[in-house]
Amino acid sequence: MKIEILCTGDEILTGKTINTNYSHIARRLADMGLGVHWGTTVGDDRTSLLEAFRQAGERADAVIVNGGLGPTVDDLSQEVAAEACGVSLVLNDYWMTRMMESYARRGRVMPANNRKQAMLPANAEFIDNPIGTACGFAVTIGRARFLFTPGVPREMRRMLDEQVIPRLLALGGIRGVTKLKRFHTFGIGESRADEMLGSIEAFKQDGGIKLGFQAHYPQLETKLAVRGDDEADLAARLAPVEAEVRKRLGNFIIAEDEQTLEGVILGRLIAGGHTLATAEMFTAGNIAARLAPLPGAEKIFRRGVVARNPIELGLAGDVSAAAAAAIAQDQREASGASHALAVLMQLDEGADRPDFGATICIGIADAKGTVSRQARLIGGRDWVRVGAAELGLDCLRRHLLGLPVDERIDFERR
Amino acid sequence: MKIEILCTGDEILTGKTINTNYSHIARRLADMGLGVHWGTTVGDDRTSLLEAFRQAGERADAVIVNGGLGPTVDDLSQEVAAEACGVSLVLNDYWMTRMMESYARRGRVMPANNRKQAMLPANAEFIDNPIGTACGFAVTIGRARFLFTPGVPREMRRMLDEQVIPRLLALGGIRGVTKLKRFHTFGIGESRADEMLGSIEAFKQDGGIKLGFQAHYPQLETKLAVRGDDEADLAARLAPVEAEVRKRLGNFIIAEDEQTLEGVILGRLIAGGHTLATAEMFTAGNIAARLAPLPGAEKIFRRGVVARNPIELGLAGDVSAAAAAAIAQDQREASGASHALAVLMQLDEGADRPDFGATICIGIADAKGTVSRQARLIGGRDWVRVGAAELGLDCLRRHLLGLPVDERIDFERR
Repeated sequence: MKIEILCTGDEILTGKTINTNYSHIARRLADMGLGVHWGTTVGDDRTSLLEAFRQAGERADAVIVNGGLGPTVDDLSQEVAAEACGVSLVLNDYWMTRMMESYARRGRVMPANNRKQAMLPANAEFIDNPIGTACGFAVTIGRARFLFTPGVPREMRRMLDEQVIPRLLALGGIRGVTKLKRFHTFGIGESRADEMLGSIEAFKQDGGIKLGFQAHYPQLETKLAVRGDDEADLAARLAPVEAEVRKRLGNFIIAEDEQTLEGVILGRLIAGGHTLATAEMFTAGNIAARLAPLPGAEKIFRRGVVARNPIELGLAGDVSAAAAAAIAQDQREASGASHALAVLMQLDEGADRPDFGATICIGIADAKGTVSRQARLIGGRDWVRVGAAELGLDCLRRHLLGLPVDERIDFERR
Repeated sequence: MKIEILCTGDEILTGKTINTNYSHIARRLADMGLGVHWGTTVGDDRTSLLEAFRQAGERADAVIVNGGLGPTVDDLSQEVAAEACGVSLVLNDYWMTRMMESYARRGRVMPANNRKQAMLPANAEFIDNPIGTACGFAVTIGRARFLFTPGVPREMRRMLDEQVIPRLLALGGIRGVTKLKRFHTFGIGESRADEMLGSIEAFKQDGGIKLGFQAHYPQLETKLAVRGDDEADLAARLAPVEAEVRKRLGNFIIAEDEQTLEGVILGRLIAGGHTLATAEMFTAGNIAARLAPLPGAEKIFRRGVVARNPIELGLAGDVSAAAAAAIAQDQREASGASHALAVLMQLDEGADRPDFGATICIGIADAKGTVSRQARLIGGRDWVRVGAAELGLDCLRRHLLGLPVDERIDFERR
């Protein structure tokens, strides 16, 4: 099945807005085993839109159109779709009512120009938008089915998952429901994760589950794209595979689905009634920057110290695991927090280069004493800095969960 | 003149890589008064490429093709361009020699597959790449001139500025040379900057200088796109306008061209033989995160303290300008730094909302004493947090430069 993505809007065409909607849609389709064949970007311009619709209608089986569904006159998607279909726009009473109700619930009167958002091509199939005023719709132009989605990212993302992908799968003769289950790991590279998981039977025998990876250093995302006849079938297929993945990736799983590493840590600190102080050197304050702004952190995050120099942290000698533990203990006492994390770094000498590295020393202090960890990372200045912050946070997560803090990671050289 | 951008490559088509090259090219063209009319994305696929070349050749006057010039078999741009032109590929001896020399200078032998990068369509105009092995070229397909550029961002950016834009201007009948002069300001919105600058005569009378703005909150970029007959003409046109812009935007200019606010601050600290400590509350450590990692900061940046709670900074009462000054003084003494910056925030109560705001109190301490500044910003939690860090850094810049620290900014409510 040939699928195209057609992005509309002057902001995208002129480059003012970077087109992250395109990459989100394309990646999501790939997760579901659907490939994208062509991408087009045009502005809020009637002639270009019409030409783009006609050309895509000749080339593709399905076209996802993004943008142009707003209430203002420069949003032209419905109008031009109707023109391409040779039909007129008609009011969708259901959507008009839904919009008015939504405004009324917030004690407001719907502005007159929102009516435009309920005007759909006469032959259109309505597509729901549960979180916005721009409903989607589908029409056929040429030989392709066109699915229109809103430009607002969170509305587009939800409509894509809930409405568009199921329709594309149906178009491609693929029945049933789908789900994307995600695991976030730190410390294993893509090829090792593939080795660890590739032998799972369900991935081999086309059990309706597709395994995929996406590396966002320093984390790796492991994705299970599942298809089933219905929700019950899907859950039955997923459960044993999910359990197996969790078993094999084990302690390296830092979070699942929408969770983040820092969110998991904060959750554990809150659950345990703990508080936290941090001290970091050469990580550009990234540990504090990830934890401190989280909702709920105000009661937990006591203090972060950011230094470029160990002397500033009260360290006289070399960076070492013992020094990190001592600094964590100092910070814990000085701040009155129940837990303290110290991440120190001894950077290599000389200019930045691909094998530029650093020795990372991590110390954690709590009421029971201290634990520490030392590791050598390479990969250039920025890479090492980002890796060190992640390693520090991961050690804290492991400590809070009672897991070993010194399990060897793939980015480490010994 | 109708200009299109055609991006090639599976990484872009599948969304694995976000297409920032597209937005860079489109914005740069807009800076130079050239609009983009259509964007296309296709993969490393012969049939799609050929079809995309032919369609763009019918629609456009000029097409910038990005990507597909690498040494590997999946890079098809030269081959498919030759096919679209109905010519064969021939070896460009000049480029072959340049590549071999470049490898030889680094004491290496050129791999055999790099030869492919010197194979250009027989009718191609060669376009130089001074920093990579992927040379550019131009051919005519249909009624459009196609300009081929490498996918590596820094190579593309340089070729775009030095080679592609001059050719597009020439195609459009616009002669001469061009330059983009940029001013970065903090504290004035786009509409006020436009008011402050719009009356400059040179912008009105088509003096070859085009004024443009790009907001990246909290900063605003003011751009002067200049065209001249030659470098001397260009400098003569630019000098008086540049001086006038500098005069009118005055103290709000935090940096020019490639400079950054944090880089300007670090430069002044180094020049004055100073050192710095910072204390910040609710800014998620962003002040330390921007200063600490800069090259040269290791000798200057003594210590940063990140807190969620004023008590952690030794403050018992309310957040106030006097308290910020006292904390800066404390941090200066505790760290032994010559200068200290404290940024405190009192966030509004309740959930995040568009008019959610905060009172920002800034204190700076040095050998002569303390200065302070108080401001109220609104715009939601993240917006206020980012604005507070910028305001703090800008106050420090102003203090180091002997400028008033309390000049009212547009984002401020009193």
